[in-house]
Amino acid sequence: MEKIEIEAIGVIHTPFDDVKGMPIQPMGAQGAKGWIELREDLIAGLRDIEGFSHLTLIYRFHKISGYMLEVTPFMDVVSHGIFATRSPKRPNAIGISTVRLIGVEGNKVFIDQVDMLDGTPLIDIKPFYPRYDNRFEAKAGWLEKNPDLPVEELISDERFK
Amino acid sequence: MEKIEIEAIGVIHTPFDDVKGMPIQPMGAQGAKGWIELREDLIAGLRDIEGFSHLTLIYRFHKISGYMLEVTPFMDVVSHGIFATRSPKRPNAIGISTVRLIGVEGNKVFIDQVDMLDGTPLIDIKPFYPRYDNRFEAKAGWLEKNPDLPVEELISDERFK
Repeated sequence: MEKIEIEAIGVIHTPFDDVKGMPIQPMGAQGAKGWIELREDLIAGLRDIEGFSHLTLIYRFHKISGYMLEVTPFMDVVSHGIFATRSPKRPNAIGISTVRLIGVEGNKVFIDQVDMLDGTPLIDIKPFYPRYDNRFEAKAGWLEKNPDLPVEELISDERFK
Repeated sequence: MEKIEIEAIGVIHTPFDDVKGMPIQPMGAQGAKGWIELREDLIAGLRDIEGFSHLTLIYRFHKISGYMLEVTPFMDVVSHGIFATRSPKRPNAIGISTVRLIGVEGNKVFIDQVDMLDGTPLIDIKPFYPRYDNRFEAKAGWLEKNPDLPVEELISDERFK
């Protein structure tokens, strides 16, 4: 299969130095603030971004090596195929998270609801557009077995190190 | 900045041979069916995916070369910073689209609402989980200037070739 070489466009700074104890998703990260340090040569690409309340970040799980095809995710006690989970130990180790935008100063983009490790290499920033990105009618498979799971309170352990 | 090497996990087959005339987003692609040809060695990763109604695909805009920092997107007549748009001619040329899952047979994942070119290299498949991925309160900056824009009817031209 085709090899694709990409280059980080910046770094995400967050309060999380260790996978252990991190929120498992942005919704569990209310109040966890961070900032993007964008490459200086890309600053012009941020024009008009401040009108958006949310950004979807694409980034590399840089502390992950290798992948598993079946994993027991934080939100269940049985295993599922990796593509039916958001677990990081996946082929290409790429993550997406939608965060809240606070503001922009030069090459710094201040964000809230971060759920990634400090020093995470950033691959892309997409504006979140509700009309494109929301799917009100979506069904969520095994994740619906336990709709009362307190996702907001779950934190990660070291299982995917 | 850090170089990141990734490898396609499969190929997306769609009805669109040419950028010209494609829907610009999955919401404009109701009824456009396609399928993912996953690498055979990754089939185990699909287990339990069929419980999800929607998948978010991460893929390479493989017909794009180079990038622009400011672009006039299909949905406006003035330019914006590339990170305030979903235009493909962006650093790393990576796209995300949420599509509807129809079914799985072996290494084939049948999908609907596709908005990418035939032969697109696939980088990852994430299950769409409404509780993580919807942002009902999001504000969409310049995209809100014209809330009546018939996005569902817009098709692309060759401006980003």
